[in-house]
Amino acid sequence: LSYFSRYSRTMPEENKKQAMCIEGGELIPNPNGTAPGQYIFAESVHYFLLPGPPMEMRPMFQAWVLPKLREIFAVNQQVLVSRILHFYGIGESTVDEQIVDLTTGVNPTVAPYASEGEMVLRISATASNTEGAQNRIAPVEAEIRKRFGEFIYGVDKDTLPSVVASVLTQKKATLAVAESCTGGLVQQLLTDLPGASSYLLGGIVSYDNRIKHELLGVPEEILTMEGAVSESTAKWMAEGVRKKLKSTYGISVTGIAGPDGGTPEKPVGLAYVAVAGPTRTEVFRVHQRGSREQIRIRVAKHLLWRLWRHVSE
Amino acid sequence: LSYFSRYSRTMPEENKKQAMCIEGGELIPNPNGTAPGQYIFAESVHYFLLPGPPMEMRPMFQAWVLPKLREIFAVNQQVLVSRILHFYGIGESTVDEQIVDLTTGVNPTVAPYASEGEMVLRISATASNTEGAQNRIAPVEAEIRKRFGEFIYGVDKDTLPSVVASVLTQKKATLAVAESCTGGLVQQLLTDLPGASSYLLGGIVSYDNRIKHELLGVPEEILTMEGAVSESTAKWMAEGVRKKLKSTYGISVTGIAGPDGGTPEKPVGLAYVAVAGPTRTEVFRVHQRGSREQIRIRVAKHLLWRLWRHVSE
Repeated sequence: LSYFSRYSRTMPEENKKQAMCIEGGELIPNPNGTAPGQYIFAESVHYFLLPGPPMEMRPMFQAWVLPKLREIFAVNQQVLVSRILHFYGIGESTVDEQIVDLTTGVNPTVAPYASEGEMVLRISATASNTEGAQNRIAPVEAEIRKRFGEFIYGVDKDTLPSVVASVLTQKKATLAVAESCTGGLVQQLLTDLPGASSYLLGGIVSYDNRIKHELLGVPEEILTMEGAVSESTAKWMAEGVRKKLKSTYGISVTGIAGPDGGTPEKPVGLAYVAVAGPTRTEVFRVHQRGSREQIRIRVAKHLLWRLWRHVSE
Repeated sequence: LSYFSRYSRTMPEENKKQAMCIEGGELIPNPNGTAPGQYIFAESVHYFLLPGPPMEMRPMFQAWVLPKLREIFAVNQQVLVSRILHFYGIGESTVDEQIVDLTTGVNPTVAPYASEGEMVLRISATASNTEGAQNRIAPVEAEIRKRFGEFIYGVDKDTLPSVVASVLTQKKATLAVAESCTGGLVQQLLTDLPGASSYLLGGIVSYDNRIKHELLGVPEEILTMEGAVSESTAKWMAEGVRKKLKSTYGISVTGIAGPDGGTPEKPVGLAYVAVAGPTRTEVFRVHQRGSREQIRIRVAKHLLWRLWRHVSE
C-alpha cells in the first residue's frame, strides 16, 4: 500500500481506476476482464499486482507470472516433475503401511493425499531437465504399480468418469445406467464431461419400487422377499437396463443413503452395485460411512470403479 | 499463546494433551469429538478456546459460545432478525432497479445477494425483541412481494428442491423426470434431500436420441424434423415420462450444455424445459450463459422453478 501511494497519481473517479498504471511497471494482460495486472521490480523486490477474481487471476498467473518467475529464477535450472497416481477401493492407511519404504526418499518424494472416498499418491522428482526427473520417477511408479496395480485407475488429471469414458470409447461399447439411491448422480458424474454421448445411451432412475419392476423388470417377488436393497435386485436392475436400452454394458446401484431408512440388517450406507456385460454380471456389496451426500458420492464412485475394472479386464 | 504458557502446566505426552485444562477456566463440552473447549475470562478479555475441525467447533459455538456471548452482552438487549427471500427467473439488476426506494432504509436494511442463477434479498431489522424486529420486516416484505410475487419461491432456508418437495407432498402428487442434457442432475438435486421418495417415482435419462424415441415415445419424425433440442421434443418427453411412469406430473429438459454442439440456430446454452400435468403441458425456452457446469445447473434450476409455479397455481 505504501508502495502504491508512493508511485501512483491521485485517485481518479471509480470508472477510471482500472485503467490506472504504476509508472515504470510492466502491464500484465488480462484476457478475461477489464482489471489489468502489473509487474514492478523495485528495490530488489518483484511485485506482481493481479485482480482478485480467480477467473481473471488464474489465467494471468499461468500465462504471465509463471513464465516470468521461471525467467527470474533461471539461475537455478532445476526442473520439478510430479506424477499423480489415482487409487480407488483401498484405504489411505493400508496404502501408507505398504509404502513406508518408499515415502522416506528425498528425490523422488512420495506423498499420499485423500479426498471423498478416493486417494492419490504424488511422486515428485527434481533434475536438471524433465527427462531426468521422469527417469527418477519411473522405477518408483513401477514398484507402486507392482504392489497396488488393480487399485490404480489413473494418472495425473484422470478421474473415474474420464477413465470409464476412455475405456468404453476405445472398445466402441455403450452404457446404460439404473440408479436408485444415487438418484441420477452416477449419470450426472458421467455427463459432467463433454462427449459422454459417444458411449452413454442414458438410464433409468427407479426411485420407486414400482419403477424397478415395471421399467427394469425386477420381479415383484424379489422386491418383496429380498428387498429393494439386495444383491438380486442390483443384478436384475443392471441386466434389465442393459436389455431395455440395448447397450453393451448395464450398471446399477441400489442402497440406503440415509439419514433414515436403515435397519440392523440393512444399515444406512449399505448398497449393492452391479455391472452386467456381454459375458457375465458382477454384483458387489458396499458399505460406506458418512452423510447422505458422502454416501451417495462414494457409492457412485465405487460403481464407476467396478465398471472400469470390469470393462478393462 | 503467552496466556497458555503462563497458566498451563508443563506439556504432557501427545495422548494426554487433549485432556489438558487451563486453571480457572470453564470447560466447553464437545459432543462430537475428544478435543475439549474452554472459556477463560482474564484481565477483562473473554477467551474461547475451541477445537479446529468445523464438525466439532460449530456445534460447540452454537450450543455454548453464542448463549455465553448473549449473556455477556446482555447490557445491550437489541435483537437482530433477518428474513431471506429467494428469487428465481429474474436478474439481480432488474430487482435492484425496482427496489432502490427500499434499499436506502436503515432499519430494516434490504440487501441483495446473487448465486448460481438465483438471487436472494435479505431484510434485517433490530428491535428490543424478536416480535418488534419482525414487525419492522413485515411491511417491507409485503411491499417486495407485491412487486415480485411470482419470482419469490421461498424464504430463509428454502431451496428450489425443498419447495418442489413441499408443494408436491402437500398435494399428494407424484413426479417423473425425463432428462437429456442435464444427464441426471435434476433428479440428483431432488434426491439430495431425504424423503424425496414420498413424491418422486423416478425418471429416464435419454442421452441418446434412440432412448428418447423408444422409452419416452418421442416420434422419430419430430427428432428428425425439429431436432432433439426443440419445443416439441421437450413436450413429448414430459408427457411421455408422465405416461410411462404413471405420475401426476412429468417434467423434461433437453438442451445443449456445450462446450461443443452449438449452431447459430441452436447455440450452446439453449434448452427447452416442459411441465406436463393432469390438465395441461407448458414448454419454456431457456437460454443460459456460462460453462457446461453452470449451464446444466441453471437449466435444472429453471425447470424446478417452472414445476413449482405450475403445481402451485
